Formats: sequence, C-alpha cells, structure tokens
Amino acid sequence: MSDFLTNHGVVVALVCAALAVAYGLLTTRQLLSLSPGNETMQRISGAVQEGAQAYLNRQYTTIGIAGIVLAIALIFIQDGYVAIGFVIGGVLSGATGYIGMNVSVRANCRVAEAARGGVSPGLDVAFRGGAITGMLVVGLALLGVAGYYGLLTTVFDRSQKEAVDALIGLSFGGSLISVFARLGGGIFTKAADVGADLVGKVEAGIPEDDPRNPATIADNVGDNVGDCAGMAADLFETYAVTAVAVMLLGVLTFTGAGSTAAALYPLVLGAVAIVASIIGTFFVKTKTDNVEAALYKGLIASGIIAAILFYPVTKWLMDGVQYKGGIDTPGVGKLYLCSLIGIAVTALLFVITDYYTSTRFGPVKKTAAASQTGHATNIISGLAQGFQATALPALVLCLGILGAWKLAGGGTVGIYGIGVAVMGQLSLTGLIVALDAFGPITDNAGGIAEMSELPEEVRNITDKLDAVGNTTKAVTKGYAIGSAVLAAVVLFAGFRFELADNKVSASTLNFDVGNPAVLIGLLLGGLMVCLFAALSMEAVGRAGGQVVEEVRRQFREKPGIMEGTDQPDYARCVDLVTKAAQREMILPALLPIAMTFIVGIIDIQALGGLLIGVIVVGFFFAVLMTAGGGAWDNAKKLIEDGAFGGKGSEAHAASVTGDTVGDPFKDTSGPAINPMIKVANIVAILIIPIIT
Amino acid sequence: MSDFLTNHGVVVALVCAALAVAYGLLTTRQLLSLSPGNETMQRISGAVQEGAQAYLNRQYTTIGIAGIVLAIALIFIQDGYVAIGFVIGGVLSGATGYIGMNVSVRANCRVAEAARGGVSPGLDVAFRGGAITGMLVVGLALLGVAGYYGLLTTVFDRSQKEAVDALIGLSFGGSLISVFARLGGGIFTKAADVGADLVGKVEAGIPEDDPRNPATIADNVGDNVGDCAGMAADLFETYAVTAVAVMLLGVLTFTGAGSTAAALYPLVLGAVAIVASIIGTFFVKTKTDNVEAALYKGLIASGIIAAILFYPVTKWLMDGVQYKGGIDTPGVGKLYLCSLIGIAVTALLFVITDYYTSTRFGPVKKTAAASQTGHATNIISGLAQGFQATALPALVLCLGILGAWKLAGGGTVGIYGIGVAVMGQLSLTGLIVALDAFGPITDNAGGIAEMSELPEEVRNITDKLDAVGNTTKAVTKGYAIGSAVLAAVVLFAGFRFELADNKVSASTLNFDVGNPAVLIGLLLGGLMVCLFAALSMEAVGRAGGQVVEEVRRQFREKPGIMEGTDQPDYARCVDLVTKAAQREMILPALLPIAMTFIVGIIDIQALGGLLIGVIVVGFFFAVLMTAGGGAWDNAKKLIEDGAFGGKGSEAHAASVTGDTVGDPFKDTSGPAINPMIKVANIVAILIIPIIT
Repeated sequence: MSDFLTNHGVVVALVCAALAVAYGLLTTRQLLSLSPGNETMQRISGAVQEGAQAYLNRQYTTIGIAGIVLAIALIFIQDGYVAIGFVIGGVLSGATGYIGMNVSVRANCRVAEAARGGVSPGLDVAFRGGAITGMLVVGLALLGVAGYYGLLTTVFDRSQKEAVDALIGLSFGGSLISVFARLGGGIFTKAADVGADLVGKVEAGIPEDDPRNPATIADNVGDNVGDCAGMAADLFETYAVTAVAVMLLGVLTFTGAGSTAAALYPLVLGAVAIVASIIGTFFVKTKTDNVEAALYKGLIASGIIAAILFYPVTKWLMDGVQYKGGIDTPGVGKLYLCSLIGIAVTALLFVITDYYTSTRFGPVKKTAAASQTGHATNIISGLAQGFQATALPALVLCLGILGAWKLAGGGTVGIYGIGVAVMGQLSLTGLIVALDAFGPITDNAGGIAEMSELPEEVRNITDKLDAVGNTTKAVTKGYAIGSAVLAAVVLFAGFRFELADNKVSASTLNFDVGNPAVLIGLLLGGLMVCLFAALSMEAVGRAGGQVVEEVRRQFREKPGIMEGTDQPDYARCVDLVTKAAQREMILPALLPIAMTFIVGIIDIQALGGLLIGVIVVGFFFAVLMTAGGGAWDNAKKLIEDGAFGGKGSEAHAASVTGDTVGDPFKDTSGPAINPMIKVANIVAILIIPIIT
Repeated sequence: MSDFLTNHGVVVALVCAALAVAYGLLTTRQLLSLSPGNETMQRISGAVQEGAQAYLNRQYTTIGIAGIVLAIALIFIQDGYVAIGFVIGGVLSGATGYIGMNVSVRANCRVAEAARGGVSPGLDVAFRGGAITGMLVVGLALLGVAGYYGLLTTVFDRSQKEAVDALIGLSFGGSLISVFARLGGGIFTKAADVGADLVGKVEAGIPEDDPRNPATIADNVGDNVGDCAGMAADLFETYAVTAVAVMLLGVLTFTGAGSTAAALYPLVLGAVAIVASIIGTFFVKTKTDNVEAALYKGLIASGIIAAILFYPVTKWLMDGVQYKGGIDTPGVGKLYLCSLIGIAVTALLFVITDYYTSTRFGPVKKTAAASQTGHATNIISGLAQGFQATALPALVLCLGILGAWKLAGGGTVGIYGIGVAVMGQLSLTGLIVALDAFGPITDNAGGIAEMSELPEEVRNITDKLDAVGNTTKAVTKGYAIGSAVLAAVVLFAGFRFELADNKVSASTLNFDVGNPAVLIGLLLGGLMVCLFAALSMEAVGRAGGQVVEEVRRQFREKPGIMEGTDQPDYARCVDLVTKAAQREMILPALLPIAMTFIVGIIDIQALGGLLIGVIVVGFFFAVLMTAGGGAWDNAKKLIEDGAFGGKGSEAHAASVTGDTVGDPFKDTSGPAINPMIKVANIVAILIIPIIT
C-alpha cells in the first residue's frame, strides 16, 4: 500500500499544482490580450514595469550571492539533497514573485482602461491579475514540495525521513527569499511613499500621483515590489514551510504505512484546496458596486468547497493509521475537524482584522475622531487600537491550538493536529494572495488614471477599487501573521522531534520556562524581534530621507517641472530607492539567521527558548504594527471621504501623520516579522547536526 | 545557632529600617522649617497640596474597598496570617506614598524659594525632599517584612516556611496598592497634562504652567500623584516582593540552619544597603552647576559602600550552609559575586537608559533631527529608538541571570543566585526613589516660579533642575522595569517550589514551551500585557478629553480668565480628573488579578506559561514605552534649547506631538506594566491552595 499511496498521493498533488499553474498561464494570456489603454497610460505603465524589473533583478542578484554561500554551507552542514532543495525553493519562490509582479505591472493600465466600462469590468481585470499571482504561489509551492518529494522517494530512492529532511532545505530556500523580499520590498515601497508624500503633498502641495512628482513612479513601483512580490514570497514560504513541517511531523509521529500517509496528507489537502480555490475565483463577480462582497464571496466559496473536499481526503489517507508506539489516532472524524479548525481560525482572523481596520467599525472611527484634537491624539488612538487588536487574534490562536491539539489526542502526538489545522488554514492561501495582489494593481490603476488624466468618472471607479484594495491588504496581513505563528509552532515541534531523533538527552529536550537558560532564550527571541523592527524602521527613515533630498534637488535644479515644461527624472528616483533598499535590507535579513545560529551553538536550551520567544513576542508586535497601521490608513480615508471636516481640515492633517507613521509599521516592519519567525525556526532545524 | 541568627538578623534589619525612617522624619522637620516663599507661592503650593490630598484620599478609599474584599478572600484561600500580612503590606505601602507625597507638595515652593540663592541650595532642598520618600520606601518596606517575620517566628511561633508564606500576603498588599497607584496616578497625571497642553498651549496659545489655565493645578498635582506616589508604591512593592521572594526561595532551597540563614540574608543585605544609602545622600552636593553629576555621585557612593558591606554579611550568614539534599553551596565568594552582579546590572541599565533618553547622545538627537521633516518622522524615529532601546537591557538581564545562576551552582538551586543578585540590585532603591521623587518636586518648583512670576534668573535655575529631573525620571524607569523582571523571575521560581511543596506531580511542574498548554499560556500572558496597555492608554485619552472640554467650557463661560480679570476654577479640574482616574483605573488594575486567577483554575501548565509570557512580553513593551517616551520628551527639550530651529519652529511643533504621544507611554502604560508583572506572579502563588 505504501507505494500505491506514494505514487497516487504525489500524482494527485502534482496534477492539481499543474492545474493552478495552467490557470495562471491561461489567465495571463487573457489578461495581456486586453487593451492597455492610450499611449500615456502605456508609457506610465511601461515606466513602472521598467522600474520594477530593475529592482527585482538587483534584489535577486543580492539574494543570489547570499544564497550561493548558504547553499555551499548546507552541503557541509547537511548534504547535497538539502542544498539542492534549498536552490529549488529559492528559485521557485523567486519565480513566483517575478512572474506575479510582471503580471501586476501589466494589469495596472488594463484595469484603468477597463474601468471606463464601470466597476464590474474593472474589478474583473484587477481580480484576475491578482489571482494569477495567487494561483502561482500555491501551484509552484505544491509543485516544488510534491515534485521534489516524489523524485527523492522514487527516482533517488531516499527514505521518507531523508526526503522530508531535504524538503526542509527547500523551505529554507523559500524563507530566505521571503525575508529579503519582505524587507527589501517593504523598505522600497515605504521609502518611496514617504519620500514622495513629504515633498510632494506636504512641501510642494501637489496631489498624490501627480506626474510632476519625480518620486511618483518609484511610489508605484514600490506598491508592486512590496505588496505583490513581497507578499507572494511571504505566502509561498508559509505554504511550503508549513507543508514540509507537517510532513516532517507526520513522518516522526506515525509509523509504517501511517508515516507515508501522514507525509502525503498535507500535500493532498493542499491539492484539493487548489481545486477549491480555482472554482472560488469564478465566484468573484458583481453586478452592483459592492466590490468587497464580490471578493469575499470567492473566498467563502473556496473555503466551503475545500472544507467539503477535505473529508474524503482524510478518509482516504488517515483511516486506520497509528501513531508511533501503536497508539490509535483519534480517528478520521476528529482529524477532519482539525482541518476545519484551520479554516475557522482563518475566518475569525479575517473578521477580527476587518473589524479593527475597516472604516465601517468603531476602532477606525475612534482614531479618525481623535484626529480632531491633533496629531498626537491620532497617534495615541491608533497605537491603543493596535494594542487592543492583538487580544482577540491571540485568543483565537489559543483556542485553535487547544482544539486541534486535544482533538488529535493531546500530549506529544496531538501536536500533529495543529499541523492539520495549519494545512486547513493554508487551503485559502491562493485566494488570499489574490486579494492581496489586487491591492497594488488597483493602487497603480488609480495612479495611472490620475497621471494620464482620465475622466473623473473613471477615476472615481479606480478610487473605489483602490479603497477596497487597502482593506484587503490589511485583512490578509492578519491572516499572514496568524498562519506564520501556527506554522512556526509546528516547526518548533519538528525541531524537537529532530533533536530527539539525533539522540539528544531527554533533559536537553525539555524546554522548561523555569530553566534560566530557556528564559534567557525567550528574552533573546524578543530582543531579536525588537531589533529587527528597529533596524527596518530606521532603514525606511534613512532611505525616505534620501528620496526627499533627491526630489527637492530636482525641483530646485529644474524649476520647469512644477510648471509642466520640464520632465522629472523618474528613473533616478527608482534607482536611488533600489540601491538604498538593497543596502538596508541585508543587516535585518541576516539577523534571524546569524542570531539563531550563534545561540544554537552556545546552548540548545537557550535556542529552544529563542524560537518560542520569537513566535510569542513577534506575534504581538506584528499584529500591533499591521492592525495599527491599517487603522491609521483607513482613518485618513474616512476623513478624506468627508468625516470630521474632510480633506484640508486640521483633522485631515493629523490623520496624514498617522498614515505616514503606519506605513513602515504595516508595510515594512510588521509583515517582515512573519518570515523572520519561520526563518529562525527553520535555521534551528538545519543546524541540528552542528549543535548536537 | 538558629535562634541567635534569627534574633540578630532581624534586629539588624529592624535597626537599619528604623534609621531610614528616622532619617526621613528628621529631614522632613528640617525641610518644613525652611521658608515656603511669598504668599502667592504658598497659595499655589497650597492648592496643589489640597488637590493631591483629595486625590489620594479618594484613591485609597477605592483601593480600600478592593482590599477588604481581597483580605477576606485570603482568609479563606490561605489563612489569617496571610490576610494580616496583606493588610500590613497595603497600609505600609499606602503610608509611604501618602507621607512622601505630602512632603513633595510642601518641598515644591521651598525649592523655588531656595533657588533664589542659586543652583546649589535649590538642589539641596529638592534632593532632600526626594530622599525623604526614598528612605521611607526602603525603611517601611524593610520594617514591615523584617518586623512581621520576627513577630511570626518568635511571638507567634510559626515555622520559617509559614512565616514566609504570610509575607507573600504582605507583598501582595504592596502590589495591590502599587498597581492601582501606578495606574490611577499615571492616568491622572497624563490626563491633566495632555488636557492642559491641548487647550492651553495649542488652542489658547498660553505657555505651560500659565496661571490662567484652569488645568494647571491639576497638572502639578498629577506630577506628584504619578511620579512621586506612584513610583514610591511601585518600588516599595518591588522591594518587599523581592525580599520575600528571595526569603521563600531560600527557605525552599536550603535545609536546617541554612534555611534560617537564607531567609535572613536578604533582610540583612537590605539593612546594610540602607546604611549605605543614608551615607550616599551626603555625597549629593555641588559647588558648580552640574546637578546631574552631584546626584549620580550620591548613587555611586551608596553603591560602592553597599558592595563593600555585602561581603561581611555574606560571610556571616552564608558560610558553610548547604542546599537541600546536602549539596554544598559554591561558597561565600561566589554568592557575594552574585550580589555584585545585581549592582552591576543596575549600573548598566542606568547607563543604557541614559544613553537612549538623554539629550547628550545620538538617539535623542536623531529624534530631534527627525522632527524637522514633520510630525510623522518624529514619531517614527521615537518608536524606532524605543524598539532599539530594548536590546541592550535585554542582553544585560540575560547576562545577569546567566552569571548569577551559574555562580550559585546552576540547575534548580542556582536560581537562588538570581535572588541574591536582585537583592544587590535593590540595595540602590532608596537613592533611586530619591532621584525619581526629585523630578516632580523640581517640576512643581518650576511651575510655582512661573505662576508666581519670580525673577527670570530664579526661573532659569528651576528650569535647570527640572530638566535634570526629566532625565532622572526616565533613567529610574529603566531600573524599575529591570528589577521587576528579575523579581518576577524569582517569584516564578518560588511559585514552582511552592507547587512542588504542595505535592503537584513532576509532569505538571514541567513547563515545557513545546507543550501547547504552556504555549497558550505564553500567548495569554502577552495578550494580558497588550490589553493592559490598550486599556490604560485609552483611559488617558478619555480622561484627557474631559479635561479639554472642561477647560474650553471655563474659557467660554468666563472670558475674564484670559484677560486676568477672572479666576479659573482649578478645583473643579482637579476633581474631574480625580474622578476620571478612579473610574478608569479599576478595569486594567483588576485584569492581571482576574486573568491569572481564571487561567490558574483552568490549567496549571497554562498558568506557568502565562506568568513567563507576562514577564517576557511585558519587559519589551515596558522598555519600548518608557525609553521611547523619554526620547520624545528630551527631543522636545533639545529643540526648545535652540536646536533645529528652536521654540516656535515647525520642528518644535513636531516634537511637541512626540512628547504628547510619549506621555501616556512613559508615565501611564509603560511603568504600570512593572507592578502588573509581579501581581500576576504573586496571585499565582497565593491561589496555589485552590488550583492544586
């Protein structure tokens, strides 16, 4: 039965992964056949394409150098299979970001053009643009994981355990790209944004996306490299890392045929979820103007379909399997419930984040109202909302962990249930990325509509789409951090099992918080999060400052720019931010790798503490930053829509301050914590041969 | 030998504690004999006295009600001795705050008057005013702990263990007062401050402390109830809690005579440290204008004297004692080194916090420079500095924990070494509180000089003293959170020992972070910190909003106020803030008690996780808030002293925003996290009889 399962499970996964990639390619062709609009629109979109391309080329070169060094190190620390896995993971993650972003920067002008026909066609093009990235993320991730696993177990004849170990390398490859992409993209997008706003809006008094602003193209490039390529790499990583961690946990928790089944289970869950996601994309349609409802309809549909498909998969693979030591699993029904818990956690995180960041509810309204008494009260209110926004998600995660663990039998084996829940959660990744990539496309479309002076009714439509994009971006961040925490918890369990497998003594394996070494580790983990946040925020500040100076210089040296008689030098701004982002991302990106390595070499107990410290402290800071940032962003939007005095009022000025503070919070430091949490946990697994 | 030690150890402690109280009383008499200045000054000072008195009366009434309920609960959960201890702790902590504050509000006008004679006499009066509170804190805390312990072991014939258990009640009494005082005082001071500034400085355009501002007396009252009474209660609690926790640890770690010696050791260390502190106060003198150097000279002197005196104490009590199971201790030399580690940790925390919050160094200068590009960059920079400021203190604590633990033998017994280090750290409490209470006295003196229109040269002197007070306030907060973390670590060890003593199974006692229940606890601990911060920040916002409305109302209804022909109604503002602070402090203050209780009843493993989660997450948020707040405060000061455009510039406006955001950070939420960390850990120990 083992061979039968191996072959068929992997084949199912590969077929579904191929489906996702095929969906991506077909949709890309459809999309590119649409009209890219008039000459001005094409010119602007071309400039954005060029800038984004240049940025990614340079970013991947930098990462490539770090990657080669790490690949060689992996050959020595682990073996060639792990190193090859690492390269595969890196290349696939890079490809996802690369292709996705190339589609996004071509979709932008097409959305602006389609918006001439109304909300519905605009939404259609923008969503399809995002869905391409979404499907590529899950398709390529599953293709990599299932394909390499299949190759290793059949062609290269490795054992399941050896194959999964090599897959850890693959997930590390994805993680490396992810932490660099999140940081580099995050620094780029916010440095350009802050720089463009400070000189353009504040000093020169010209509106956002005004073509006279030399930093405006860089700003639009930033949306794509940050929200599109960065988020894609982040969720590619979460997806691959989680699948591999659950496979590892399965191989180490089950015996005999059960171990094969448990290794394949996450792959097949992922596979049917892809089918559900593809079907879900067809639900995104609106005849009215309710864009949000249309998007969420797709998400809900794919969640329900996935929930239904999970049952036969669980029945097929997990019926009658046994935990190590001949302990019976709690049965198909309870494991299936674990996968449903994952979907429920996602739904709840979605709703809670929406509550804290949407203009419809109390928190954002309070922050907007606090803007009336000035900059300071706006900031205090946003921070207070951000603090408060951590509570319910923490509670949801606690309940999810508790439920899945207890359902799967509690104790050590029950942690596998948490793994199943995370896979359930990840079943929605395809559509979540689609919703997220929708953001920069509509943002760009709005910019192009503005810069090429399309009629006002078209701009109203792109503005509407853009506003929805802001909310979906905020909401998907709540999902990203939630899934990162659960994935990291599963990784930590894998770390312990691997240590046990390496014959580490039981007392070393006991990470008791009362042990000062573990406590020191917890503090060091928290330190890593704070230092990471400090470094990335300062990086935005420094890079943004350079943009400010460059824009001021251009205005000073070419006074014709402001009168419209002279062209600003967009490329120079793009180039400047590109270089700055590359320079600034290195130190924070290497921090989690280096610190985990050093602490691990000194003491395994402290390393265990560090891994959990990063998860716990990281979670609270990430939610504080992303939810706070989202609240400030939409408080500004609420005021711009006329509340509390509207545009130009004192309250508006205060809300702009909050939004600017929120920018590096929600788009640089906060989301970059997700991959950092996982990088630390993966590095810990990979260095086990050295530290034991 | 046991009796000899008991009697003599306790007597030494009582004599030294009495010395501190005598110092306080004598100095108070001296201080009150000084001239309180002219009639205007006395009138203003009288108004502040009246407001502060009214506030404390009401606060203690509220706390009294909560206290009676808890005391009755303790009789049932624990026993009468614990309940009586609880009452003693509460009353002594309350008395400290009460007396200290009454001295402060009488010292303020005397400092303003003395400043007519120059910096040196001004410093002298202000420091002596602060030193009274400082000596009362350590004197009354030691008197309570040693006295009750002596009574219980001799008159009531309780065993050491029973006596120490009753002392846990005493420390809980101190903790309860502390969390209420920190929160109530913090909300009061910042609501009044923010309210006074927003209408006064921003809307009406009148300077700070202008007598026409109806909220100005409330603002001055706030300085006293927040920084003086709040900080005094906080450090009274840290002192009592730590001493008791180390006694508990000693009794549970050692056997026979060693257990008596270990119980007395922290008391005698505290006793000789009092002698060192009293001597230290005489070193605070300056002939030049360098106020900071004079203050730090006193601190350094008392640290050195304490370090010298610790050796004979350690030799006397800890020579030849044995850990339980007949394990030899590492000897007098190494235990002595543990106490020195405590002093070193304090010194390093002092220097690091000074670096991040003083106008002399990079971080504050960067934040000031960032103000030039606007409100948002000022905020981003302050937050980035706050994040960064957590790293070195975390490292220092890690090294301190590691060193003390290893020196004392590592493993389970070695945790006693951490306790010794914390006692070493607390040896400086007397002078630290003196430095801190110096802040509100000089702040008030400045206010009185301004309001009673003293000559400019006098105001320059009080401004100078006030600026130093700002720095000492920031620096002592770094010390408070550092000692809170170490004290909580010792408490947690006590919690585990108590559980073991209550025959809890070894597997329950193992708080492994890989156990999902412990992980859930860690997340809930973090949740508690964030929710606490959110609630307290929102409380300031709400109460501040009420002040704004009241001040606006007075200006509107009595137009004569602005022209100086009509008197503002100060008392009404004080009354309003008093009521608001009382109302707002209840929910956050009860949070750590209720949540610890509920989680404890549900699951002991989760409770263990929660206790550590509160410590770890609490530490980072507390440092972020207090250091960030300090940096903003002094960035404003730097600009007001003429940097980057000086007063009235755009940069100045931006720096005022940062300062206002920093206010609830550094004076309400951040410092209130200290007692919260310890309350959770003490409640956990007290509810052990229920949860096992």
